[in-house]
Amino acid sequence: MTTSPFDHPFLSGLLGDAEIAGYFSADADVRAMLSFEAALARAEAVHGIIPAEAARKIHETCAIFTPDIASLKTATAKDGVVIPDLVRQLKKAIGGEAAEHVHFGATSQDVIDTSLMLRLKSATFLFGGRLHALVSGMVALERQFGTNRLMGHTRMQAAIPITAADRIAAWRIPLETYRDRLTEQVFPVQFGGAAGTLEKLGAEAAAVRSSLAQELGLTDEPQWQSRRTRIADLANLYSLISGSLGKFGQDIALLAEAGGEIELAGGGASSAMAHKQNPVAAETLVALARFNATQLSAIHHSLVHEQERSGAAWTLEWLVLPQMVMATGASLRLATELVGNIKRLGTS
Amino acid sequence: MTTSPFDHPFLSGLLGDAEIAGYFSADADVRAMLSFEAALARAEAVHGIIPAEAARKIHETCAIFTPDIASLKTATAKDGVVIPDLVRQLKKAIGGEAAEHVHFGATSQDVIDTSLMLRLKSATFLFGGRLHALVSGMVALERQFGTNRLMGHTRMQAAIPITAADRIAAWRIPLETYRDRLTEQVFPVQFGGAAGTLEKLGAEAAAVRSSLAQELGLTDEPQWQSRRTRIADLANLYSLISGSLGKFGQDIALLAEAGGEIELAGGGASSAMAHKQNPVAAETLVALARFNATQLSAIHHSLVHEQERSGAAWTLEWLVLPQMVMATGASLRLATELVGNIKRLGTS
Amino acid sequence: MTTSPFDHPFLSGLLGDAEIAGYFSADADVRAMLSFEAALARAEAVHGIIPAEAARKIHETCAIFTPDIASLKTATAKDGVVIPDLVRQLKKAIGGEAAEHVHFGATSQDVIDTSLMLRLKSATFLFGGRLHALVSGMVALERQFGTNRLMGHTRMQAAIPITAADRIAAWRIPLETYRDRLTEQVFPVQFGGAAGTLEKLGAEAAAVRSSLAQELGLTDEPQWQSRRTRIADLANLYSLISGSLGKFGQDIALLAEAGGEIELAGGGASSAMAHKQNPVAAETLVALARFNATQLSAIHHSLVHEQERSGAAWTLEWLVLPQMVMATGASLRLATELVGNIKRLGTS
Amino acid sequence: MTTSPFDHPFLSGLLGDAEIAGYFSADADVRAMLSFEAALARAEAVHGIIPAEAARKIHETCAIFTPDIASLKTATAKDGVVIPDLVRQLKKAIGGEAAEHVHFGATSQDVIDTSLMLRLKSATFLFGGRLHALVSGMVALERQFGTNRLMGHTRMQAAIPITAADRIAAWRIPLETYRDRLTEQVFPVQFGGAAGTLEKLGAEAAAVRSSLAQELGLTDEPQWQSRRTRIADLANLYSLISGSLGKFGQDIALLAEAGGEIELAGGGASSAMAHKQNPVAAETLVALARFNATQLSAIHHSLVHEQERSGAAWTLEWLVLPQMVMATGASLRLATELVGNIKRLGTS
Repeated sequence: MTTSPFDHPFLSGLLGDAEIAGYFSADADVRAMLSFEAALARAEAVHGIIPAEAARKIHETCAIFTPDIASLKTATAKDGVVIPDLVRQLKKAIGGEAAEHVHFGATSQDVIDTSLMLRLKSATFLFGGRLHALVSGMVALERQFGTNRLMGHTRMQAAIPITAADRIAAWRIPLETYRDRLTEQVFPVQFGGAAGTLEKLGAEAAAVRSSLAQELGLTDEPQWQSRRTRIADLANLYSLISGSLGKFGQDIALLAEAGGEIELAGGGASSAMAHKQNPVAAETLVALARFNATQLSAIHHSLVHEQERSGAAWTLEWLVLPQMVMATGASLRLATELVGNIKRLGTS
Repeated sequence: MTTSPFDHPFLSGLLGDAEIAGYFSADADVRAMLSFEAALARAEAVHGIIPAEAARKIHETCAIFTPDIASLKTATAKDGVVIPDLVRQLKKAIGGEAAEHVHFGATSQDVIDTSLMLRLKSATFLFGGRLHALVSGMVALERQFGTNRLMGHTRMQAAIPITAADRIAAWRIPLETYRDRLTEQVFPVQFGGAAGTLEKLGAEAAAVRSSLAQELGLTDEPQWQSRRTRIADLANLYSLISGSLGKFGQDIALLAEAGGEIELAGGGASSAMAHKQNPVAAETLVALARFNATQLSAIHHSLVHEQERSGAAWTLEWLVLPQMVMATGASLRLATELVGNIKRLGTS
Repeated sequence: MTTSPFDHPFLSGLLGDAEIAGYFSADADVRAMLSFEAALARAEAVHGIIPAEAARKIHETCAIFTPDIASLKTATAKDGVVIPDLVRQLKKAIGGEAAEHVHFGATSQDVIDTSLMLRLKSATFLFGGRLHALVSGMVALERQFGTNRLMGHTRMQAAIPITAADRIAAWRIPLETYRDRLTEQVFPVQFGGAAGTLEKLGAEAAAVRSSLAQELGLTDEPQWQSRRTRIADLANLYSLISGSLGKFGQDIALLAEAGGEIELAGGGASSAMAHKQNPVAAETLVALARFNATQLSAIHHSLVHEQERSGAAWTLEWLVLPQMVMATGASLRLATELVGNIKRLGTS
Repeated sequence: MTTSPFDHPFLSGLLGDAEIAGYFSADADVRAMLSFEAALARAEAVHGIIPAEAARKIHETCAIFTPDIASLKTATAKDGVVIPDLVRQLKKAIGGEAAEHVHFGATSQDVIDTSLMLRLKSATFLFGGRLHALVSGMVALERQFGTNRLMGHTRMQAAIPITAADRIAAWRIPLETYRDRLTEQVFPVQFGGAAGTLEKLGAEAAAVRSSLAQELGLTDEPQWQSRRTRIADLANLYSLISGSLGKFGQDIALLAEAGGEIELAGGGASSAMAHKQNPVAAETLVALARFNATQLSAIHHSLVHEQERSGAAWTLEWLVLPQMVMATGASLRLATELVGNIKRLGTS
């Protein structure tokens, strides 16, 4: 099943990103969700909410447990979320008295949102590294061709001559900003229980949440189940990255069309015209920029997240956010490749 | 790899649609693309463009050929389209002199857009059947509960009493329109060659295109490679369907929240609260409506399809359209299920 | 107050459309709303719902009545709709017993949606005429330059030579379709009363609605207050028009940038570079296409129109639809101007 | 002319914001643009680029000059920007030798983008004050009703009881974040000249830009004419504000529909049902949230800003950004009003 080009057997060669995709596989999600349950048990044991022995047992089982995916699928169809069945299966695998202490005080959204944050944190870290490499590639380009003459264009008309360095700076500067911003992102644990009040944990609620966050390497914050600002801010940042890379792609495509001021390796072949060298990566950057610009709208619609938990607004995020991450990853991969394929920029 | 919930091992239980997904697998795409090459060879033989024997050989091979997907993936990464490598592999499988007649006069976009139309045609036909069933379900609902009293609500306030039939009509009438419109859709072949002029086919160009369309069961029309109105109109229709079903879902969710005027079976379980029956299908209809409403924007951006073929605008369609079809399929599946789960509407 | 460039003292020179703007002034809206009230009175008198003398009085007053706009503004702030205060003012102007028969059986949405339809009908008719002129302009262009050679471009690369006629056809064909579709649009009256059931009109309801539609020159259809398909379809058609004109604009801008294959009059001046001739109309067509592509999404979100009347979904339409009409009008105006400014296309 | 409800004679009562609108009138724009020209002259005189006497003359005239708006409109239609004609008129008003020094080294985008920043800075400052007042209103609400019982709802179903304070916190916390973020926004001057290189200012370029920024009370930064990150970030922040207020509105509307847990003053009247009290402000908040969520997409499409200046991408910003500011202003106004109208929340 391959509706999305990001996961497609052959289109993913162009549009996918194997490294990032790993974080959005069902398996990665399940592993992260089991990490949550294991860490929760430990945190609750530390604060005397559940027996230490039960926590140990839960932790051990989570590390090795593999759920029945067909059952998860059937249950998700009915429950709208995977957790009730995952917890049921996990309890069965743990067995005995310890099973009763699994998922104590938690709700589906705690597990799913925390799993998302764990994986967004990893992907965002990778983006930082890629932006670093990409900026380096642009710096090298500037070193090599920076003093070359390039015709400046405004409103689709030749304006006055600039240098290649001027143009490269317009591509590079925003990427440096994003690289720094990626490192400042905060990835909070989500833990609120049935309606956000952690009502089953009494006075220990905040302490358990803090321990849970620490176990998982996430930031400790009050539950944010109906406050989706962090999600929207991350989506904005992802779309800024792909948007600025879309500008880079558009510029390269226009240079390639005009022809004289760029030499580009790695162009794509045509099935009808042997002589063509299509600037495929450049065009794809534009497509991915417009894709993310579109999706961001859905994420902002999801801010209208009614009451203590909105099935509608939350499900809309699932349909959109992972693909925004993939599009951003693919943009970074293609842009780095494209920078490497610029054999000349401007005229000396 | 499962970035998209439509293809996801367990989320697809809620958001996927196995029947529709079949048309958007890589395999279905490859089969449809090979049908194009086979039909093209036949049409060209009929009009004396290529030898009949070559056409026979091409047709036979297309029927059984299975390409090397890994190679397609690598090539798509470079070429931006799968066709150059698919045609190369196909030619190799055919061998001999016949191989030289494969894909004659065609270009990548001819194959890919025609494959899309073949599959959209099938999916759209299925939607028609589902809408028929859904309308029947609503008619049955009206027969059973139509005379029941329902409180009419305007601007989130009780207004005056209406009947259940009044409300059901607001759900049913648009669906009847869409059912009829689905049957009126036209699915044209795409055939233009390198730049839309079928320059290699000379005087036979229109005749070959007509035969090609007939072979494939598609409508004969001049190439539309940079004119994407039909794509945008189909996307509009799909989003109308999911949008009207989103209104149905929102209404059911509001009824379920108020509680007194509806009895609903099949609610989803909560991992934290055993007593809850969540109107999961209703909420998911709202999410899918908003998903398609968002995606439609990208399709309309793709109308800005520069020159004879835009890699950027075209690739953007690939990122969005198949998922719109899936979202529409899932909406229809969920709405039909939801209608069946309404055990009472209004009060007698 | 001039937040929107469509209404702006100087930006409207570029982005506005005086002819279309006339239909979306507050005054035009008030006049259309008063037409509704007058026609309703007559229709109700014909069917014996209200006295003929009252209808005559209402009709006379509506023809000359000018409401206090400051009062309408204050009341709209509170009521969310203008009608309660407009009807109050109108009743006062009519006075006596006739006043009690104003707006009988109707609700705010009946008046506002019907006023919208009256004005969309006029604007859509104008669009048809403009498309006719624009297509004629393109036909003339083809006659003059059709046989000229033009380099076909695919994926931002020179492909093979085509003729100017080939490119012009890609611009013209969709416009011909839209011109025909504009004439097929249906503009229905909206008349449903408090919750869509015309409960105050009893057995005469359908007959009154039919007479009302006839009085106003609109199509008679059951109320559609929560079924917004016609609105969404019109918005789709408007965005198709501006989208196809965006493709035209993008093509012209690319030709103007390359320089050799087009001669363009009417370019814009630069404040910094006296030598430049900016293809302003071409670029603006792209901006308007992307504007409408974006807005269409909001209209489709409005399909999730809960219960018998949604203040939220309906108000969202008001924020978006009139501007889509303006953007379409401006696109048609600019495209016609641009066609007239093409002094040469291709090379002979 | 009143296409946009934000500027509409009566709809602006509901959807407008007089205070914010003042910053987006043509007059405010002209005044800000003239401030730019005056400040530029002074900065250039300080650094010996133009004579001090000319700068004095320019400054004096800019302070009192009122341009011919009809001429600006005609010129904008042709040039796509207002500046060439505004500068021409201004030069004429100044006269003599000083006139030759007006706008020296600058381009249209410098003036227009800087004027935008001056006005966004003022509007953003006002938003900070309003958020402060709104948060105070919510704190007061919490003090009054915080301990009241409220039924927590998840997935449109009653879940477990929470307190009114829990719900109010979900509304208040994001607003506190936004209030702080508004104060951190940076509003840079735009100054780049014809193609971003300030080629006419030689070695003094950076110094002039720094003085210019200081004169105007803006931040000194290298030109950002094709790097639109700050615009996109501001738009994201505005949409976060209206989005979180949309959640507040949706929650209030749902409470108002259920009825028992809220007492709300200031409801809107119906033209058909005297008994109704519509939660107009709450619904409007949802509409404005979805409006901004939609517009944000266009701003992110504008990140694909080709070459040194894109007429298409830039004009798209003009069509969208001022209205996003207005929608945010109206949201804040309505939310503050709504908080004041909550006479009871929850049950004691």
